Amino acid sequence: MATKKQNAFYAQSGGVTAVINASACGLIETARQHKDKIGKVYAGRNGIIGALTEDLIDTSKESKKDIAALKHTPSGAFGSCRHKLKSFADNQAEYERLIEVFKAHNIGYFFYNGGGDSMDTANKVSEVSQKMGFPITCIGIPKTVDNDLPITDNCPGFGSVAKYVAVSIREAGFDVASMSETSTKVFVMEVMGRHAGWIAAAGGLAAEKEGDAPHIILFPEVAFNKEKFLKKVNQCVKKFGYCAIVVSEGAAYKDGTFLADAGSVDAFGHKQLGGVAPVVAQMIKDELGYKYHWAVADYLQRAARHIASETDVEQAYAMGKAAVEFAVAGKNAVMPTIVRKKTKSYKWTIGEAKLSAVANVEKMMPKNYISSNGMHITQACRDYLLPLIKGESYPPFKNGLPQYVVLKNEPVKKLLKKKFKV
Amino acid sequence: MATKKQNAFYAQSGGVTAVINASACGLIETARQHKDKIGKVYAGRNGIIGALTEDLIDTSKESKKDIAALKHTPSGAFGSCRHKLKSFADNQAEYERLIEVFKAHNIGYFFYNGGGDSMDTANKVSEVSQKMGFPITCIGIPKTVDNDLPITDNCPGFGSVAKYVAVSIREAGFDVASMSETSTKVFVMEVMGRHAGWIAAAGGLAAEKEGDAPHIILFPEVAFNKEKFLKKVNQCVKKFGYCAIVVSEGAAYKDGTFLADAGSVDAFGHKQLGGVAPVVAQMIKDELGYKYHWAVADYLQRAARHIASETDVEQAYAMGKAAVEFAVAGKNAVMPTIVRKKTKSYKWTIGEAKLSAVANVEKMMPKNYISSNGMHITQACRDYLLPLIKGESYPPFKNGLPQYVVLKNEPVKKLLKKKFKV
Repeated sequence: MATKKQNAFYAQSGGVTAVINASACGLIETARQHKDKIGKVYAGRNGIIGALTEDLIDTSKESKKDIAALKHTPSGAFGSCRHKLKSFADNQAEYERLIEVFKAHNIGYFFYNGGGDSMDTANKVSEVSQKMGFPITCIGIPKTVDNDLPITDNCPGFGSVAKYVAVSIREAGFDVASMSETSTKVFVMEVMGRHAGWIAAAGGLAAEKEGDAPHIILFPEVAFNKEKFLKKVNQCVKKFGYCAIVVSEGAAYKDGTFLADAGSVDAFGHKQLGGVAPVVAQMIKDELGYKYHWAVADYLQRAARHIASETDVEQAYAMGKAAVEFAVAGKNAVMPTIVRKKTKSYKWTIGEAKLSAVANVEKMMPKNYISSNGMHITQACRDYLLPLIKGESYPPFKNGLPQYVVLKNEPVKKLLKKKFKV
Repeated sequence: MATKKQNAFYAQSGGVTAVINASACGLIETARQHKDKIGKVYAGRNGIIGALTEDLIDTSKESKKDIAALKHTPSGAFGSCRHKLKSFADNQAEYERLIEVFKAHNIGYFFYNGGGDSMDTANKVSEVSQKMGFPITCIGIPKTVDNDLPITDNCPGFGSVAKYVAVSIREAGFDVASMSETSTKVFVMEVMGRHAGWIAAAGGLAAEKEGDAPHIILFPEVAFNKEKFLKKVNQCVKKFGYCAIVVSEGAAYKDGTFLADAGSVDAFGHKQLGGVAPVVAQMIKDELGYKYHWAVADYLQRAARHIASETDVEQAYAMGKAAVEFAVAGKNAVMPTIVRKKTKSYKWTIGEAKLSAVANVEKMMPKNYISSNGMHITQACRDYLLPLIKGESYPPFKNGLPQYVVLKNEPVKKLLKKKFKV
C-alpha cells in the first residue's frame, strides 16, 4: 500500500468502448483532487505495453477542459492493447519489469481499466509487488461491452452498445416495414458478442409489442436450428409483412460451428470473408425466396458515443472516480462495482469486489432471460436491460460533427536505460 | 388544374429515408391550413400501388399530434414501393386506372414524393390527366439519399445519411486509432450509392486535418486501382498507425465490374453473399497482412433518424409545405427545389423546377469534388457538403429509445367495383 505521496499509473485494456474515456475522466479528475496522496497520473501509451516499455504519458500536461472532454469522447484516449500478462511463473520478466518501471517513476497506484483478464493482471501485480518489496495499490476499473464480468450488476461500455443496437434495429425495422410490400422483406443485423448474447438481447428492447422489430434474435447460447428458424421467419413475414432479425456474431450450430464459418471458402479457396449476417440472409433467400438486406455494425456499435446511454456514461465516470477513492482510502486488489438497488424505479450505488473474485470468471446470460422459443428475450431480461440504456448523453457538435478530444499525450521522460521487448 | 375543392393524393416512392416523413408532415399540416381548396389528403398505401389498387389511407383520421410526430419519424409512414409506371403507350391501363381512382375519390391534386423516376411519373400523370379530361395538379417532392436529382441544390434524405456516415467513420476512426498498436490496423466501412459517390464523399467530412479518419474514400466515379490503393493503405498505416476507409457499394474496376462482385461464388457455387467492405478488407489482409475490421451500414444509414441533420429535416418539411403552396397557387407539373444562396454563411430558399426538366436526369458528382489522387474529397466538395449535415434534430426518447409514430392508417372506403392487378 502506498504510504507516502506517490504517482499513479492508469491503463486502458482490450477492446475500447464509447465510455472507457469517461472512466479515465472520473479517475483523473478525482486524482487531481487528492494531491496530498497522489502525485501525477501517468497513463500507459497503448495500455500495459506503455508500462512495460516505459512509454508513459504525463496526464498532468492535459488541460482541465481536455480531461473533461474525455467524458464525451469514445475510444481509448491513451491507446489500448490486447496483451495479457501470463502467470508470474510463466513470465516473471514482465512482472519484474513492471515493478522496475513503477519504482523508477515512484508509482504506488496501479489502475487497470478493462475486462476479466485485466482484473486478473491487476490482482497479480498487487501480489507480485508485495513479494518484490515494492507494494503497489492495485484497483481494477470494470469495462467491457460484453457485460460478462461477475459481481457487478453490469459493465460500463455495455449500456451504450445496447442502446445503439436497440435504436438501430428499431430504425431499420421501420424502414423495412415501409418497403416490404414490393421489396425487402427480411433484414438481418449482426452484432457483437462471441461468447454471450447480452448485446443481441439488447436488440430485443426495441420490440415493445407484438409485431415490433426485431422479431427474432439469434443468441450464442441457443444452438441454431435452421428449420425452426426459417419457419419463424416465414411466419413473421406472413403475419407482419416483414421480419427483422438480430444475430450475434457468436450464433452457432449445436456442434459449436459458428454460422459465420459455414460455407467457409470462396471460389479462390479464401476463407469466407466473414459476417454471420450475410450467411443468415442468404439462407433465407435460398430457402424462402425473400428479398433481404443485411448490416454488420462492427466497431460502429461500440464507438457510437453520439447515442451513448446516459446511465452508462455516469456509471463509467463513477467507476473511475471510485477507483481513486478506494485507493486513497487504503483499499487494494479490489474493483468498484455497480450495485442495483432493490427499488421499484432503477437506482444504483457503488460496491466493491475483490479482484481475485472477478478475475477470469465470465457472467453468462441467465437462462430465464431467453424466451421459451429461444429466439427472443423475456420480461425478466427487459427489466434488467432497460435501465442500462436510459437517458441520452449527447456530445457537443460543431459543424454537424461530434467534437471528440485528442489529447496531447506528452511522454514522461524515460529513466531506465534498459529497453524491454514485449 | 383543380378548380373546385378537391381531395389530394400523396404517395411515398422508392427507398425511404430518415426524413421523407418530415415532407409528409409539412404537406399534411399545410394542406390542413388550406381547407378552402384542399379537402382530405389521401395517402397511397405502399406508394403508387395504393392508388392503382384503390387502397387509400385517410390521413384526416390522424391526430394533429401524430402528424406532427412524422417530422421525427424515419421510414415511410404510409408504406413505399418500387414501381415505376411505364410510358403511356406501354402501359395505358395503369394511367387510366390512376385517373379512374382519382376521379372516383374526387382527387384533384397528386403529390409524389420520390426521386427521378417518380418525378417522371408525376409529369406523365399531369399530361395524361389533361388528355383524359380530368386534369390533375401534379407536384413532385424531392427525396433521395443518393442526392442525384438535378436543379435542386441537394435532395432531402441525403443530408441525414451524410451526417450518419461522417459521424460513424469519425467514431470508428477513433476506435481503430486506439487499438492499432497491437490489434486492428485497418477499418473498412461500406456505404450506399451504387451510381454516385455522394454518400461516400460525405464520409470525408470527418477528416478535418491530416491523419484524421477516413484516410481513403473509394468512389464509384473512380476506377479502382488495386496497386495504388494498397500503396496508400500501407502509407497510412506507416504514417498514422492505422487506416480508415470508406467504400461506396458502387466501387468498381475499370471494366465496370463491381468490387463486391469479384470473388463471386462460394464453395457451394452461391453468388457471393455481398458486401464490398469484406472484399476490400480481405484484399488488404492478403496483400499487406494487416488485421482488419469492417462494417456494412446498409439500412442503418438511411433510417438513422436519431442522428438526422437538422438542415435536412427542415428542408424535407419545407419541400412538403411548398408542394401544397405551389398547388393552391395554381402551379402544375413542378417540383419545389432547394436553392443555395450565394452568401458566405449557408442560406437556402425554395425554388421551382419543371418536372420535365427533373425527370430521368441524374446529377453526378462534379469532377472537382474528388481529390487529384482519386481517394478523397476536395475543399470545394467540403464547402458543398458541410452545410447539409449541420445541426442536430433529436427525436424524443422514452425509456432510452426514440419514440417514432405508427399511424392508424385507416382505409378510405373503396368506391370502384373493378379490382386492378399491379
